[in-house]
Amino acid sequence: MDIVVQKYGGTSVATLDKIKDIARRLKERKEKGDKLVVVVSAMGKTTDDLLDMAYRLSRNPKPRELDVLMSTGEQVSIALLSIALNEIGCKARSFTGHQVGILTEGFHTKSKITDINADIILEELDKDNIVIVAGFQGINENNEITTLGRGGSDTTAVALAAKLGAVCEIYTDVDGIYTTDPRRYPEARKLDSISYEEMLEMASLGAGVMHSRAIEIGQKYGVPIYVALNTGDVPGTYIKESDEKMEKTVITGLAVDSNDVMITINNLPYSIKAISDVFNSLAEKHINIDMISQTTPVNNLINLSFTLPKNDMNTALKTLKDMKKSIGDYKIETDEAITKLSVVGIGMRTQSGVAARMFSVLAQNDINIKIITTSEIRISCAIDPEDQDKAVTAIAKEFNL
Amino acid sequence: MDIVVQKYGGTSVATLDKIKDIARRLKERKEKGDKLVVVVSAMGKTTDDLLDMAYRLSRNPKPRELDVLMSTGEQVSIALLSIALNEIGCKARSFTGHQVGILTEGFHTKSKITDINADIILEELDKDNIVIVAGFQGINENNEITTLGRGGSDTTAVALAAKLGAVCEIYTDVDGIYTTDPRRYPEARKLDSISYEEMLEMASLGAGVMHSRAIEIGQKYGVPIYVALNTGDVPGTYIKESDEKMEKTVITGLAVDSNDVMITINNLPYSIKAISDVFNSLAEKHINIDMISQTTPVNNLINLSFTLPKNDMNTALKTLKDMKKSIGDYKIETDEAITKLSVVGIGMRTQSGVAARMFSVLAQNDINIKIITTSEIRISCAIDPEDQDKAVTAIAKEFNL
Repeated sequence: MDIVVQKYGGTSVATLDKIKDIARRLKERKEKGDKLVVVVSAMGKTTDDLLDMAYRLSRNPKPRELDVLMSTGEQVSIALLSIALNEIGCKARSFTGHQVGILTEGFHTKSKITDINADIILEELDKDNIVIVAGFQGINENNEITTLGRGGSDTTAVALAAKLGAVCEIYTDVDGIYTTDPRRYPEARKLDSISYEEMLEMASLGAGVMHSRAIEIGQKYGVPIYVALNTGDVPGTYIKESDEKMEKTVITGLAVDSNDVMITINNLPYSIKAISDVFNSLAEKHINIDMISQTTPVNNLINLSFTLPKNDMNTALKTLKDMKKSIGDYKIETDEAITKLSVVGIGMRTQSGVAARMFSVLAQNDINIKIITTSEIRISCAIDPEDQDKAVTAIAKEFNL
Repeated sequence: MDIVVQKYGGTSVATLDKIKDIARRLKERKEKGDKLVVVVSAMGKTTDDLLDMAYRLSRNPKPRELDVLMSTGEQVSIALLSIALNEIGCKARSFTGHQVGILTEGFHTKSKITDINADIILEELDKDNIVIVAGFQGINENNEITTLGRGGSDTTAVALAAKLGAVCEIYTDVDGIYTTDPRRYPEARKLDSISYEEMLEMASLGAGVMHSRAIEIGQKYGVPIYVALNTGDVPGTYIKESDEKMEKTVITGLAVDSNDVMITINNLPYSIKAISDVFNSLAEKHINIDMISQTTPVNNLINLSFTLPKNDMNTALKTLKDMKKSIGDYKIETDEAITKLSVVGIGMRTQSGVAARMFSVLAQNDINIKIITTSEIRISCAIDPEDQDKAVTAIAKEFNL
């Protein structure tokens, strides 16, 4: 008899009818012999509604109190799901983060799980109960309520599975992981499986069905994660250790991201100090730089380009202007029209020429590359948004996505 | 520097604007030098809405899960009030029942407080924080969330005041305790003070601004309770030990209750067994009998009358019919049109003739008494609802209410 941890997100428990549906599915699954631990999020937009009240009272609500407030959303869900299960004759008990000993550390509203008291859960499973656990929440060493930040319920589910030696099933409103965004590109294929590493790259590129923190925990503890539609009707995707079959596929996925802009600094003095000053001062403003490229020096001056999130652009421009006094009279250009295409695949490690194939495909289709970066298992390039659809279709065809 | 426990009910925190108002008042009060512990209920109709969801999922939701569900209402209120206080520069921290160690025993949805960890609160007060505590909730010895049933937040507040040696201020949507219902009788006077005993009688008669459990705790531990309007604009009423001044007033209050019906059993065999069988079988159905009267036996048969809540009448009639086989062929009459008038006053203990004065007032006004009962500090009589206003006016005049 296996222990299975399931997680249902906010849209999956948004209404009482949906909660009843989940209860029925859990009952069927339990009758097949599995021991079930179920993590649920807050119903629908509950968390947003709670935050809205807080921000109407204060522009800077205390994070400690936000955690007290937000954690109620999941608490409502666990009680209702337990009531729905008991109503159809399926024994179930609900547990808050505190009750199940989900210990956390770090800042309020973005805490990290340090331990979970598995004994409480195992005891309840032995009593033939379905154990329902509030996602997204825990307590810290001062017995204060904490929350885990974005993707928190996924993190709770994978951490529970790691602690219990269980598999983790994430039920959501998409039916698996695709080679690229299926809502925009009909040629996208659903993957049977994807490695943790590839999924992490995809998640960090904004293509993430799951938050990268949960995937990292899954990778660290070797928890098999299954992502599927919350109706359970169609096969989903496994996130797991890479295997031989995976290695044969060069490219697993293609992510498209239009949330970045590009800034180019022309005529920057060619010195380590000037370049590091630029990036240090942006880091001080908590601006995440993604792709970086640099031209070869001419007259000891270079052009430096990089991409960053759209809503950090004004802060970045102000920071760069303020630095002119200390560094020199460079010229700043911005390009707000970029789309970032990234191909990801652990096959790249063992197969050469992937970047070359990608460039020639883009060249054959008259698509200009504005900037390019590569990592061990990923190649990203920024292009004109007008070329986006043409590029995705061409790359998907070339790499059989 | 005194510790003051304040309690705000659901209507007092029903909107964000009301929460802001309370925050401003608390800030002013704190600046006067008092150390404040604040108990709040769930916002407006939140508890009803939560229960409604539970009962749409199940006709018999598990009480354990109802407690998990309902306790979220107060948790939202404490977080929001704390956020509102910190926003106006007034240090505050919120605590759930579990966090402040409100230990309970007994059944879910109607638990009783057994202890409170005062150290946590005293430590926070020493740090100059306003301590905000979720009313209505606690935990039991199994670390399960519990709730305290009707009047639960009042109970939390008075129990906290008892534990901290503090006074307790209950802020609500009425501005104090009146000699009789001021919404119906303009002659009603607001009392400066009322004894615990009198308030208990008034509360049990349905005239209760507060639930009797909270008053009992106040009496047991000698906690002065102040009941006043939540705007703080007008003086309220103290509930406290009786003093000499109180003893001089014969009657403190007049309660009117129209929620009962009267059942009369004619020709019941005059035996202890028959009478006790009647009341035992009603008790088995959890029917609360209030007033009882019995005629003198004629031919070894008596007429037995008693009052009971309207919505228990059908159950009572069925129970009584089923008993005919074992007891004998009595006749059952019902009187659904009764109003119960009760005068309450600890002065009755030392002053005789109160009942006589009441009867003669009613007689002078041609008001028939259907049934009458007396206790040490209370006289109740059931009359025709048509006579209600005339009776209240006459009694209020006679006893200067």
